[in-house]
Amino acid sequence: MRYTPAGLPVRHFSLSHDSEQIEAGFQRKIQCKVPAMAVADAAQQMKELALGDMVRIDGFLAQKSRMGTQLVLHVKQIQLLERG
Amino acid sequence: MRYTPAGLPVRHFSLSHDSEQIEAGFQRKIQCKVPAMAVADAAQQMKELALGDMVRIDGFLAQKSRMGTQLVLHVKQIQLLERG
Repeated sequence: MRYTPAGLPVRHFSLSHDSEQIEAGFQRKIQCKVPAMAVADAAQQMKELALGDMVRIDGFLAQKSRMGTQLVLHVKQIQLLERG
Repeated sequence: MRYTPAGLPVRHFSLSHDSEQIEAGFQRKIQCKVPAMAVADAAQQMKELALGDMVRIDGFLAQKSRMGTQLVLHVKQIQLLERG
């Protein structure tokens, strides 16, 4: 586990997303990987998760760094849906 | 207006987001720019919008290209909240 300068545990991970979405009347299969991070309680919760577990995440997107354009999903709540 | 190979109008734009979020018990100011695109009806709707208008967007994230890692927000619904 890593820690922020303020001493909070932080966990960086990659979220793989699969879904089907309707766009312009057509169904399309969506697959994407979203860089994600969890701080404090959310980071602790992630210790119980293993690679391949299916989760539902609520959170917000923010820029990874002040100058960069890469987005990272900040986890506010994570819910285990199914063991991988 | 550009068109997809199937002849659907498509509009690429950059969405500027500002909000305050709570993370690990601390309030933080979030600013980010999200690459976005709208196809068909959503693209037509965007013709009525001007730079600086405040909007609420519902949609989904997907990879910009098959091999890349950059994410793009696909607009499903766009709602004008306030003229810029």
